[in-house]
Amino acid sequence: MKIVCIGSGNVATHFANAFKANAAELIQVWSKNQDHAAELAGVTGAQPISDLKEIDPEADLYLIAVKDDAIPEVITALANVKGMVVHTSGATDIGVFSETGMNFGVLYPLQTFSKQKALDFNQVPLCIEAKDQETLDALKSIARMLSPLVYEVNSEKRRILHLSAVFACNFVNHLYALSNEILQKNDLDFEILRPLIMETAVKVQDAFPADVQTGPAIRNDEQTIIKHKELLKDRPELKDIYETLSKSIKKTH
Amino acid sequence: MKIVCIGSGNVATHFANAFKANAAELIQVWSKNQDHAAELAGVTGAQPISDLKEIDPEADLYLIAVKDDAIPEVITALANVKGMVVHTSGATDIGVFSETGMNFGVLYPLQTFSKQKALDFNQVPLCIEAKDQETLDALKSIARMLSPLVYEVNSEKRRILHLSAVFACNFVNHLYALSNEILQKNDLDFEILRPLIMETAVKVQDAFPADVQTGPAIRNDEQTIIKHKELLKDRPELKDIYETLSKSIKKTH
Repeated sequence: MKIVCIGSGNVATHFANAFKANAAELIQVWSKNQDHAAELAGVTGAQPISDLKEIDPEADLYLIAVKDDAIPEVITALANVKGMVVHTSGATDIGVFSETGMNFGVLYPLQTFSKQKALDFNQVPLCIEAKDQETLDALKSIARMLSPLVYEVNSEKRRILHLSAVFACNFVNHLYALSNEILQKNDLDFEILRPLIMETAVKVQDAFPADVQTGPAIRNDEQTIIKHKELLKDRPELKDIYETLSKSIKKTH
Repeated sequence: MKIVCIGSGNVATHFANAFKANAAELIQVWSKNQDHAAELAGVTGAQPISDLKEIDPEADLYLIAVKDDAIPEVITALANVKGMVVHTSGATDIGVFSETGMNFGVLYPLQTFSKQKALDFNQVPLCIEAKDQETLDALKSIARMLSPLVYEVNSEKRRILHLSAVFACNFVNHLYALSNEILQKNDLDFEILRPLIMETAVKVQDAFPADVQTGPAIRNDEQTIIKHKELLKDRPELKDIYETLSKSIKKTH
């Protein structure tokens, strides 16, 4: 299978490496920045390009992993290819392809990627959607080559998944950052908190989070809540987050 | 070493099992509910008691693992013991012992415990504080028997740790719960989100969270933020949390 990777960021990099590990042939990597294209193309043995017009029309799969607002432009440039074209965005409807005659689909990885950090692709849920059943079946085979966690998800539900991932990943990471900030201001090391962070995530791997909620808010431990707010009296923003989330915990349970 | 465990909840249960695994002798388990005392005493081979007056005065260590507001009453009941007395609370100052003549200290586990779930005590940071250096040294030996992660932390810093743990554990778990709620309302399974939750926690094990923040807020991706708020238009509480945390992410970076 010959693949063209359009994009060179975190998502593109992890897909390119995963395809390579599964003996697919990466023939081109495009980035508007030629250096970025060259960097990823270098490790995967592909040709780096920075002009969309140079894209090889004979590939089997075109993987679009660029910023959401750049997707339409890329699709226009791919108008004449015969292979399958997929985007990887959580927030972009499959309708973005609707004016085209191509075999299109979506291959959305519900995972957080960093370029620096290796990731086991077996732990990447892949959400697929396609133009028609035939394209979907073909995309499913490709997805299963990369990960056992393949889900058929339409655009509406993919939007919901993306939203829930903002809560479970982006906002969660920000809470980690705030807790680190609280520690640092008091000469305490984030190291001491890392085992708790791990265990909190491990706990919900075979339980539902609402069933394992702990802490002062769910216990209605007003004395502790008052003490905590007192500690945050000079940090109105943190106090606001503390109050908003404590109120929400009490309301849910 | 002979130990009396005062309390039979999550913290008491995990400490009791950890002591037993390290060949300490659990001689009594107290709970105001005799059945609860009997349950934990049964697995650890101790005597179950429900009257504080029955506590054996000849033990080496008295571990207080009860609700914060019950600690003073327990301390009063232990007035005449000769062994070391420690509480396990993050939010309770060591000053709670100040009127006593006992050898006192604090052994605070910075971890989240569930009775149902086994936990490797090697991954439990133990924060210790004591009346004097001699007691601290003795407590340090006991703590190191249970876990390699032993930290000397005074009451003021322990309060800060406890507060930061509310952000990194209790609030994080609530965000998991909210994301599950969003999924369920749309017939999507929480299963699909679990790998992302794990990876988000794994990522900060050797990085600082502010350095690995991702998502629409840090990218200033207003289009996605608007779409997400639109999806939450009938959920004012979730929308409020979305806005509060997005604002905070933008402000931090």
